[in-house]
Amino acid sequence: MQIGMIGLGRMGANMVWRLARDGHQCVAYARHAETVNAVLRDGVTGASSLEDLVSKLETPRVLWLMVPAAAVDSTLDVLKPLLSPGDIIIDGGNSHYQDDIRRAEQLKEMQLHYADVGTSGGTHGLERGYCLMIGGEKDIVEHLKPLFVTLAPGHAAAAPTPGRDKPDSSAEQGFLHCGPSGAGHFVKMVHNGIEYGIMGAYAEGLNILRNANIGKLEHEVDAETTPLRNPEHFQYDLDLGEIAEVWRRGSVISSWLLDLTADALLKDPQLDAFAGRVSDSGEGRWTINAAVDEGVPVPILSAALFQRFSSRGNGDFSGKVLSAMRAGFGGHAEKPAK
Amino acid sequence: MQIGMIGLGRMGANMVWRLARDGHQCVAYARHAETVNAVLRDGVTGASSLEDLVSKLETPRVLWLMVPAAAVDSTLDVLKPLLSPGDIIIDGGNSHYQDDIRRAEQLKEMQLHYADVGTSGGTHGLERGYCLMIGGEKDIVEHLKPLFVTLAPGHAAAAPTPGRDKPDSSAEQGFLHCGPSGAGHFVKMVHNGIEYGIMGAYAEGLNILRNANIGKLEHEVDAETTPLRNPEHFQYDLDLGEIAEVWRRGSVISSWLLDLTADALLKDPQLDAFAGRVSDSGEGRWTINAAVDEGVPVPILSAALFQRFSSRGNGDFSGKVLSAMRAGFGGHAEKPAK
Amino acid sequence: MQIGMIGLGRMGANMVWRLARDGHQCVAYARHAETVNAVLRDGVTGASSLEDLVSKLETPRVLWLMVPAAAVDSTLDVLKPLLSPGDIIIDGGNSHYQDDIRRAEQLKEMQLHYADVGTSGGTHGLERGYCLMIGGEKDIVEHLKPLFVTLAPGHAAAAPTPGRDKPDSSAEQGFLHCGPSGAGHFVKMVHNGIEYGIMGAYAEGLNILRNANIGKLEHEVDAETTPLRNPEHFQYDLDLGEIAEVWRRGSVISSWLLDLTADALLKDPQLDAFAGRVSDSGEGRWTINAAVDEGVPVPILSAALFQRFSSRGNGDFSGKVLSAMRAGFGGHAEKPAK
Amino acid sequence: MQIGMIGLGRMGANMVWRLARDGHQCVAYARHAETVNAVLRDGVTGASSLEDLVSKLETPRVLWLMVPAAAVDSTLDVLKPLLSPGDIIIDGGNSHYQDDIRRAEQLKEMQLHYADVGTSGGTHGLERGYCLMIGGEKDIVEHLKPLFVTLAPGHAAAAPTPGRDKPDSSAEQGFLHCGPSGAGHFVKMVHNGIEYGIMGAYAEGLNILRNANIGKLEHEVDAETTPLRNPEHFQYDLDLGEIAEVWRRGSVISSWLLDLTADALLKDPQLDAFAGRVSDSGEGRWTINAAVDEGVPVPILSAALFQRFSSRGNGDFSGKVLSAMRAGFGGHAEKPAK
Repeated sequence: MQIGMIGLGRMGANMVWRLARDGHQCVAYARHAETVNAVLRDGVTGASSLEDLVSKLETPRVLWLMVPAAAVDSTLDVLKPLLSPGDIIIDGGNSHYQDDIRRAEQLKEMQLHYADVGTSGGTHGLERGYCLMIGGEKDIVEHLKPLFVTLAPGHAAAAPTPGRDKPDSSAEQGFLHCGPSGAGHFVKMVHNGIEYGIMGAYAEGLNILRNANIGKLEHEVDAETTPLRNPEHFQYDLDLGEIAEVWRRGSVISSWLLDLTADALLKDPQLDAFAGRVSDSGEGRWTINAAVDEGVPVPILSAALFQRFSSRGNGDFSGKVLSAMRAGFGGHAEKPAK
Repeated sequence: MQIGMIGLGRMGANMVWRLARDGHQCVAYARHAETVNAVLRDGVTGASSLEDLVSKLETPRVLWLMVPAAAVDSTLDVLKPLLSPGDIIIDGGNSHYQDDIRRAEQLKEMQLHYADVGTSGGTHGLERGYCLMIGGEKDIVEHLKPLFVTLAPGHAAAAPTPGRDKPDSSAEQGFLHCGPSGAGHFVKMVHNGIEYGIMGAYAEGLNILRNANIGKLEHEVDAETTPLRNPEHFQYDLDLGEIAEVWRRGSVISSWLLDLTADALLKDPQLDAFAGRVSDSGEGRWTINAAVDEGVPVPILSAALFQRFSSRGNGDFSGKVLSAMRAGFGGHAEKPAK
Repeated sequence: MQIGMIGLGRMGANMVWRLARDGHQCVAYARHAETVNAVLRDGVTGASSLEDLVSKLETPRVLWLMVPAAAVDSTLDVLKPLLSPGDIIIDGGNSHYQDDIRRAEQLKEMQLHYADVGTSGGTHGLERGYCLMIGGEKDIVEHLKPLFVTLAPGHAAAAPTPGRDKPDSSAEQGFLHCGPSGAGHFVKMVHNGIEYGIMGAYAEGLNILRNANIGKLEHEVDAETTPLRNPEHFQYDLDLGEIAEVWRRGSVISSWLLDLTADALLKDPQLDAFAGRVSDSGEGRWTINAAVDEGVPVPILSAALFQRFSSRGNGDFSGKVLSAMRAGFGGHAEKPAK
Repeated sequence: MQIGMIGLGRMGANMVWRLARDGHQCVAYARHAETVNAVLRDGVTGASSLEDLVSKLETPRVLWLMVPAAAVDSTLDVLKPLLSPGDIIIDGGNSHYQDDIRRAEQLKEMQLHYADVGTSGGTHGLERGYCLMIGGEKDIVEHLKPLFVTLAPGHAAAAPTPGRDKPDSSAEQGFLHCGPSGAGHFVKMVHNGIEYGIMGAYAEGLNILRNANIGKLEHEVDAETTPLRNPEHFQYDLDLGEIAEVWRRGSVISSWLLDLTADALLKDPQLDAFAGRVSDSGEGRWTINAAVDEGVPVPILSAALFQRFSSRGNGDFSGKVLSAMRAGFGGHAEKPAK
């Protein structure tokens, strides 16, 4: 199937190659010519501009956008006058699902189709395949199926769920038409919200393990420091890397994220390469906002998000307020950082 | 290797079979004769009492306790006078690691050895193997290695961590000597704490997905109900089972717990078999208490624990206090349950 | 000063009386004639319709809306054609501050002025006065000052902050021009968010005190129930009402909300009149959404909101997911409700 | 009434003066003579040693310990051989209630009495009085009543709770016999747990207000930064000090802690004197541990505690784990601190 790919970053380039490797004809475009040149190989043609890209595609065209969420609307503004009724635009990036709803409506007025495809798999997707969560019109999604089949990991990526007998289901191949416009990014948004929670659960647990030797440490004795009541209970020097490795086999908490953690701890046991300032892309935030709007309690997912905010110092002023109150009622002075 | 197994519940019976299947000689004991009879097969001998069990084992004996945490001390009280110096007792259940420290010290006075083995894998362990987290004396753990090798899942249970070159490590086989007495159950405790967090992350995310159609519902209009500002953003009827299935392939959040979730949603899409009252065994609680003692922030793991407490109604009185205050300052009356 | 009050519920009626009592001329309107009649007294004139209300006010008119947030826009639609350039509309209800921004812009095109006034004080405001958080144009707020002075509690409502020397400040009288349109409701929104957090802190603490006798209770002994390790530490039958009362004097946590709690516990020591299903008006939700947008961590305020969601059963499906997983990996069956 | 005070820090010295001012005879002891000399005045006698202190008191002696929790046991070890049957020891510091239970039992064997008195009021207690939460034997508490009456704030410290008709209750004077040994410190522990929650609620709310101008700021545009969707909604420069001041009058969230906050913001509007590293004394921790043991959900109180842990960098390793995972699956690099 022919496809035009717009945006050739980490994700887009790998997707082009995975598609071409499976026989699809890809026309690739990015803003910088060298980026385009870097992806060229059998089955991949380059385009020098959006106009060039559009001209190289047969109608009904299929265009896959793999650009930052903030660049989608401006790209669409350029594209729209170049396209013909019946053309299909896919947003495979990290757009807010509410933008999908708006965009689909606007494109529909021009007889253009829009599909939103939440794409999980990160930089490993070229080999591992991409989990695709798709929103849009049913027949359009059906039309695009050959692309999804190629990009998705396929049946073999996981053992069959016992007793499942849904031979027509695409979910077992790793892609799913979730619902109308926005449904794909909605499901991907929640996927990322869950991801934050799972990551945070491992992180907190490893932090407890790391401090299991706190009873061996000298502790300051002053009114601002809580004494450890039972230092004899915290005398363990645990090897986090080996623990992550052992959990990978047979434990209840084995997962791909644990695999990555074991990998990271193997290469850098104290994780010294990192400061602990954790970014958040939008999905974690939007997940919380959606839950709040729905009236659904999400104490875990929100704690995971706020942990990231705090890691970047965004809660420091709150700490100042607390210290100011403590000085006010108890004459407590802050202890300096060690 | 010869081993005496005490306690033949879901876990103990499966472990006996896995051991016998691999050539170990098992003497099995449980309080009820029919329980003992039910596990008998090639390589498994029954015992009619703890005395009988002890008499059938050669010294130095190896006894593996697989009984409820609350029954360990009373079992040890009966066992101790029957044993000989050099015998080894393994607690493979869910004991609090602080009890391990105490027990190991007491047994040491009698020249008895003690190993604590946190055992993960649940009812699937017979086929899948058990992830074993072990605390105790180094040479004792070394001595018991043949048992651990059999019980653990083995190398093939997970793909090798890239670049890992530790051929002597047991972690890759699925068991690990974590440290001195209590270290095994400490690591298992934190494992369960993490488990709670991961489970809760999936649960909250699925709850958001399930309510993605809230904009379609009629909403009451009264001062006690927050209006939904944008009902057009919540019009999705999502198929949770298919979503869980698609996430199993290629997504960042694939895991064994997700596999189980897909399985559960396949068999009971609305999970009608459950009321949502979630029990907690002790480890989640002890994890929080350990974190608090260490001064380690665990907002996610604690949220997961408290979610379970609340699901059993333990927070209802808090709700009454809130409603009473609202009545006090605003004349708000509680809305009845639907 | 002359003022037209639209909406005569708990809040509106009391505000009319407080204004009239201080010499302002009030024209009062509500949809039902009997509601209007019920507020009539010296200084209060009734209106039979919005047209009648507008006709009874001298220009530039001052109209104060005290209607549900959901009714503001429809009320404005009726009012707008009746008004004259220079007239002032005040929204004293619980509008979302983003609606204020939009409305102020729309009204400005018609040369109408808009002020948003977050009003705290509840049903006690008639005697206690109202804390007023105001957004809008500076000169309009200045023009309305006589109304604010009457409605606010006044200096004597709190002891002076030591060293404060701001004789011109209105804050010490209980009203504040916070900023441009929306600023009043923004500050009120956060006020309510904080209110949720404080209420929840008391509620959780009282729940701990109430369960301080848990060591006296019989506990079930089964694999799904965590045993209490130290029952001797939980043998207290505490009198919550007396504790709330004693905290009112000299403690760090004395507050008006504590006063209300002591009052409620006095009248209903077990709070049997309440089921614990806690409503939330919109402000708590909007507070979280604003924090998320700002990137500010709010673990406490969000926990307070989610506690309310859970109290209404909105987290039950999450619990079902957890129970389903536990059944899946451990064969655990849910315990029935007692 | 005659009383021996041991420990003359911020709290102890003020209590001696408040007692002496009301006619009680105080014998005061601290480790350093100059500390003792500094508290001497009418009604206050100094002691040069614990022996000297004991010798100056008539039997049955009343000794009030106002020393760090960590120093109580060692002080009792010195005192015990000096005392006579019937003497009374009061621990007015911040002991763990479980230590009270143990100490009371040990002292009872020597026919000594023990009362635990949780004391709230901080450095303001001399003028404001102390809220006293008392545990111990009923007749001993009754015997000590004259001291409690003097130390407590008295009826006038709060308006009467409407409809309350309990003329014999001490709670209205500001002290309360909560129950047997440990009950006083248990209630004080929970008081502090609540205090953390309330403080955190204000802190988070003020942090949201402070960032209400985030839409005015330049934002970095990169894949690691979430764009602000609606900058026009965050254009407020709010005056936190004036807002705290206005909330003191008529709002639902007026409290003593708010008074202190207004005071702090008046003197240091940006709270530049503080770094935001917040200490925690033990009570907040013990509160969470007690709640966990009771099975009571405390999402707010725990969030408040963990916020403090994080403010001191105790969560930094968790952040490193998260960053390492993000690098692993998405090639994300950490953004440097600004």
